[in-house]
This record gives sequence, structure tokens and C-alpha cells, in this order.
Amino acid sequence: MNDTDFHFDPVVFQPIGVIRTPYKESAPYQPIDGDEGDFRLVLDPIYEQGLKGLETFRYITVLYYLHRVEGDVELIVRPPWAGGVAVGVFASRAPNRPNPLGLSVVRLLGVEGNVVRVSGLDVYDGTPLLDIKPYVRELDSKADANYGWVEQFEDREHLILHIKGIPHEH
Amino acid sequence: MNDTDFHFDPVVFQPIGVIRTPYKESAPYQPIDGDEGDFRLVLDPIYEQGLKGLETFRYITVLYYLHRVEGDVELIVRPPWAGGVAVGVFASRAPNRPNPLGLSVVRLLGVEGNVVRVSGLDVYDGTPLLDIKPYVRELDSKADANYGWVEQFEDREHLILHIKGIPHEH
Repeated sequence: MNDTDFHFDPVVFQPIGVIRTPYKESAPYQPIDGDEGDFRLVLDPIYEQGLKGLETFRYITVLYYLHRVEGDVELIVRPPWAGGVAVGVFASRAPNRPNPLGLSVVRLLGVEGNVVRVSGLDVYDGTPLLDIKPYVRELDSKADANYGWVEQFEDREHLILHIKGIPHEH
Repeated sequence: MNDTDFHFDPVVFQPIGVIRTPYKESAPYQPIDGDEGDFRLVLDPIYEQGLKGLETFRYITVLYYLHRVEGDVELIVRPPWAGGVAVGVFASRAPNRPNPLGLSVVRLLGVEGNVVRVSGLDVYDGTPLLDIKPYVRELDSKADANYGWVEQFEDREHLILHIKGIPHEH
């Protein structure tokens, strides 16, 4: 295949479980680290063995299917909190993307049988779970990571509250 | 749906492009940060607009389909470098997982048209690309992340070289 051949077969995944959150009708944009609600990854019991050793990690990466996305995919998006700035969908975390594949890094609070308790997760209750990966310090934590286009704003600190989904006064 | 109903519809994604790497026949376990080879995400040109603004980020998260995984999925894995220790597949980054969905955090080197140049990426040439997300400092970088079960080993430093895929003398 050369670079100009973009005819791929579809990729088919089968959810391994379901994500339980308090968000039945609305969900925050991003994980709320201080949220003390009930957040659980409930695996199909056939996969329970696959969790062995996961409890040794402080953080995990959760991958899921954004099953409640509605509307068309737009390649240029204008995050509602970003003052009208227009960026590409791949430079954003907007859920309306060509493949509605969600990713959140969360704290692991405990593993009991087929259930993984985690810190605040920004998804609707009932979201199909696709994968869990250990978040490994050397691979996934980049101390010199930046904020990208968000840094151009004078009120960056305020916008970061929006990015983090932290409730605040305007 | 209650917690004991695990009958999900399959999730179907369509690749948005292809990953080009020097790895035709073998690939390292994880990204090699110092690798100076030619690593490119080549998007289907219909998605080129979606890259607008991506160049402002220092790191990106690349999600892809592990299309060359062979063999059965085992829920308990024994990483070849880990001295026989057995962990669950979800506590590992093994490619043979229930959903062969790959994730790598890489440095962004440049965006030109529909092509994103990145630092060393641990995948075979021709890997189907599913999504690109900006790696946002506040969301994705966890300064207190740990190494999980790898920390139990006396030769942790050595094992981390394996985890990072860095060539070294034994």
C-alpha cells in the first residue's frame, strides 16, 4: 500500500464491560479529579483474570466508545469555552470525531473482582468500555507537556478550569 | 441495562489514515524517544483540516489498530523481560488484548498538509490510524504516576529500559 491508498477495512471491537457513573443525562467535559461520586469500570466477568496486578498502578488509562455522541462530525470545532477560537478536531478533545473513541487518565482507587473503582470519569453512565491500560510513569507522563493553543489566551488559568471540568464562578 | 447484562453491540471504527515507520518486520515494545528514524502519521486527505492547531502541542496521543497481532488472547501474560512474573493483560501493555487497540504518547515534530511527523513510534509500518488527540498537560501528565508491579523488581532500572524499548547491554 502506498501513501495515497486509504481504503481500509473497518475495525471491529467488542466492548469488554460498561462504565458506571453518576452522569445519567449530562456529563462534564473532562475527568474531575476531586469528584467523590461513584465511578466504576464493570468488566464482563469473563475478563476478571485480566485485572490481576492492576491494583499496583496509581493511574490507569481508560478507553471507551462515546456511544451518545449526536450530530455530524465537523473537522473544525469551536470549544464553547474558548471564545470562538476554531481548531481542528484532532487538536481538540471534542467527542464528535471521525472515530468516537474516548480516553481518560484516572486514579485507580481499588479492584474488587470484576469491578475497578476510579476517580471522576467524564462519561455517561452505561458507556461501553473498550480497554484498560496501566498508566506507566516513564511511558505516559511527560513533565514538559504543554497546553497547545490554549496557551495563547490571556485567561489561560480560567480556561484550564474548563478543560479540567472544574466547576467555578465566572 | 444492569451490571450483569454484558450484551453489547460491536463497535465499528474506520481508520483515518496509516502510520509509516521503519519497522517492516519487527517493532520495539514501546516508543523509543531518541529514535531518529522516519515516523509519520499519514491521514486520508479528507481529514487534513482536522489537524489545524495540532502543531501547537508538544506531545500527542496516537491511537491505532494493532493489525499484526497474532495468536490467542491470554488474560494472564508473562512479559518476556519480566522474569516470569504473571500479570493480567489489563495490567500490561501486551498487544494481544481483547481489543487490540494501541496507544502511544509521542513528541510532535511537525505538521505538513495531511502528514504529522512524530518521534519514535512502536508500531509496524502500515498500522491503521484510528485517532489523534492532543496530549494536554493538566489532563494527561501525572507527576506522581508510578511503575506498578514493575517496582517490585530489584533491577527496576533495567526493566524500565525494556519497557521503554531502549537498546542496552545485558
